[in-house]
Amino acid sequence: MNNFSFYSPTEFVFGKGQENNCGALVKKYGGSRVLIHYGGGSAVKSGLLDRVKASLDAAGVTYVTLGGVKPNPRDTLIYEGIELCRKENVDFILSVGGGSCIDSSKGIALGVPYDGDFWDFYGTGKPVEKALPIGTVLTIAAAGSEGSGASVVTKEEGKLKRDVGSDMLRPRFSVLNPELTQTLPPFQTACGATDIMAHVFERYFTNTPEVEITDRLCEAILITMVKETPRVIENPDNYEARANIMWAGTVAHNDIVGVGRSQDWNSHGIEHELSGLYDVAHGAGLAVIMPAWMEFVYKHNPMRFAQMATRVFGCQMNFENPEATAIEGIKRFRKFLHDIGMPINFDELGAKAEDIPYLVKMFGLGDGKTGGFVSLSSDDVAAIYTIASKATL
Amino acid sequence: MNNFSFYSPTEFVFGKGQENNCGALVKKYGGSRVLIHYGGGSAVKSGLLDRVKASLDAAGVTYVTLGGVKPNPRDTLIYEGIELCRKENVDFILSVGGGSCIDSSKGIALGVPYDGDFWDFYGTGKPVEKALPIGTVLTIAAAGSEGSGASVVTKEEGKLKRDVGSDMLRPRFSVLNPELTQTLPPFQTACGATDIMAHVFERYFTNTPEVEITDRLCEAILITMVKETPRVIENPDNYEARANIMWAGTVAHNDIVGVGRSQDWNSHGIEHELSGLYDVAHGAGLAVIMPAWMEFVYKHNPMRFAQMATRVFGCQMNFENPEATAIEGIKRFRKFLHDIGMPINFDELGAKAEDIPYLVKMFGLGDGKTGGFVSLSSDDVAAIYTIASKATL
Repeated sequence: MNNFSFYSPTEFVFGKGQENNCGALVKKYGGSRVLIHYGGGSAVKSGLLDRVKASLDAAGVTYVTLGGVKPNPRDTLIYEGIELCRKENVDFILSVGGGSCIDSSKGIALGVPYDGDFWDFYGTGKPVEKALPIGTVLTIAAAGSEGSGASVVTKEEGKLKRDVGSDMLRPRFSVLNPELTQTLPPFQTACGATDIMAHVFERYFTNTPEVEITDRLCEAILITMVKETPRVIENPDNYEARANIMWAGTVAHNDIVGVGRSQDWNSHGIEHELSGLYDVAHGAGLAVIMPAWMEFVYKHNPMRFAQMATRVFGCQMNFENPEATAIEGIKRFRKFLHDIGMPINFDELGAKAEDIPYLVKMFGLGDGKTGGFVSLSSDDVAAIYTIASKATL
Repeated sequence: MNNFSFYSPTEFVFGKGQENNCGALVKKYGGSRVLIHYGGGSAVKSGLLDRVKASLDAAGVTYVTLGGVKPNPRDTLIYEGIELCRKENVDFILSVGGGSCIDSSKGIALGVPYDGDFWDFYGTGKPVEKALPIGTVLTIAAAGSEGSGASVVTKEEGKLKRDVGSDMLRPRFSVLNPELTQTLPPFQTACGATDIMAHVFERYFTNTPEVEITDRLCEAILITMVKETPRVIENPDNYEARANIMWAGTVAHNDIVGVGRSQDWNSHGIEHELSGLYDVAHGAGLAVIMPAWMEFVYKHNPMRFAQMATRVFGCQMNFENPEATAIEGIKRFRKFLHDIGMPINFDELGAKAEDIPYLVKMFGLGDGKTGGFVSLSSDDVAAIYTIASKATL
């Protein structure tokens, strides 16, 4: 097992009606003047925003609001948010929405106390030294941003999608009420489920041996997702299944299932270029890329893929031919994604094979290599895009 | 799923040599004058205490020391520690040892800023409002105290074992170096493993349905323990197995595997009277009590025990007679405990059946009932002690 640090100080407040506690929570974590940052109209229409405001009012906490966060959140709104926070002396950001909203909030949080351009931190590894505290009221189980220190933002100009990570960006609290996800359309629900599973797979495929505990924790989440996702697609009001998925989504990404070994985030990186260019849902992009990445790399360690196939997807181990089991597991994963309504190739996603050279160029690897499980060159990335472009069941 | 809060803000710093960072960690969390609290001579003899001191010296942090913590830590040493901290203006407690040492440190931590008797908080539910910050350097994988807000202390007078729990008592940081556990004798290693598994079982047996994610996370730890413990008993120097067990022990008790549903801590409570009276190791007491508790309650939900039997111990499900599978799982668990060198009945533990009435009286239930899975009366507790007294393989 590799040496590691694990630090997840967020207070998770889970269950029905918990958004009514967010005023008290903001106060507990030192907020007195809040920016409520949210997305489109659904938080307004559902009455969620009113409940959040009422909770802040009851706690004697004042606020300003900034809506309009879109999927694949943009730098432009973050600049607006930073200006607003400075003008209004905001000392706490309350993010009401999904991963995009939280990621946008994190951009604002690190930008407010910083003299330069907040974009300086994205894709550069520049360490975040200061940020406003953040709280979240999560409305989509997917990104795991409610428990992570990560933020992914798209620069409008050039459609560059880049990320930053810092413990300074971990939310002080996150309110997780599964009821808030019950109105999500099946497509978005399935996108979220795919993202959650990808967060685990990117930690599962490792070259560090003998980290049984992390393996088993990964599988715990994956098994849960395989069981609960179809139940929610079939019946969106299934609170218990929604609750399992929501908590799985948080645990999948605060790194408790990733510690002690190498990870490989190439699928996420390769997908980011797709959702950056076509503005497709991140989860949908992952459904196309992740199995393609698996098909490209599985020969590096067929036994690990056979382990996934048997333990997660219930395949029978083929002891005479473990590679067959490995391949069957990947096929089952793609079939699972298809069954929950995800695209599985470029056509279904709305991407074009002719753009592959451009996508590879934007991935920006040049003559370099990247990857913790299998090190990929630009040609390898092109090959993965090609597999993804033509995939069938 | 029940509503819940999950809050585990401790920074876990895991791996080889990490004790050399504890000076910097104490400083990071605001300590300038430290009480190093430790147990017997092993931390001295192994050179660990010297390395900790050198790390504090290098960080410019001064310290006083208090050794002598025993298993089942006593109130008497805590009074001494409180006095010393006050006299020396200590602002941070660094606990170098196992669960007993950490629990003793927590007693001191809450006692120093409190005007009355620290014992007021134990067994009473009185909320802790203030405590000195704590850091730990863990030397035994067992109690999970390094990541929990709990402390269990024995009052010398009357041998009362009582507990307290508060987020105020959660360590700021915990250094987990598996190398430090490699010198532990097999018996103590096995006691620790038993304690870890008990912490999971007490969360696993629940009446709250459909919390798949928590079920699977529980099983992840149990499966890991079943695999790794015999490897460590066979070869105490196996770093990888030690590392898996150490991290499993922490994850088993910061409540990540317990959220969202009822729990049942009767086995721990029933055991506490044994280790309180006979001063036996807590883990050894659990090895005797936990399977006996299972045998007494399994009929309440045989399918849940069959689930444990198949998923954790690899039993074949008997679909015609699930109860048979449930019983087989409990037998396998007791056999596992025996195989790693644990006692399985009163004789092997050094307890006496004739003391059962006294143990039941000390358990203090009177005419009441207690338990989240199966509600037990004093007679039921007596029956469990009786099963435990006579158990065989």
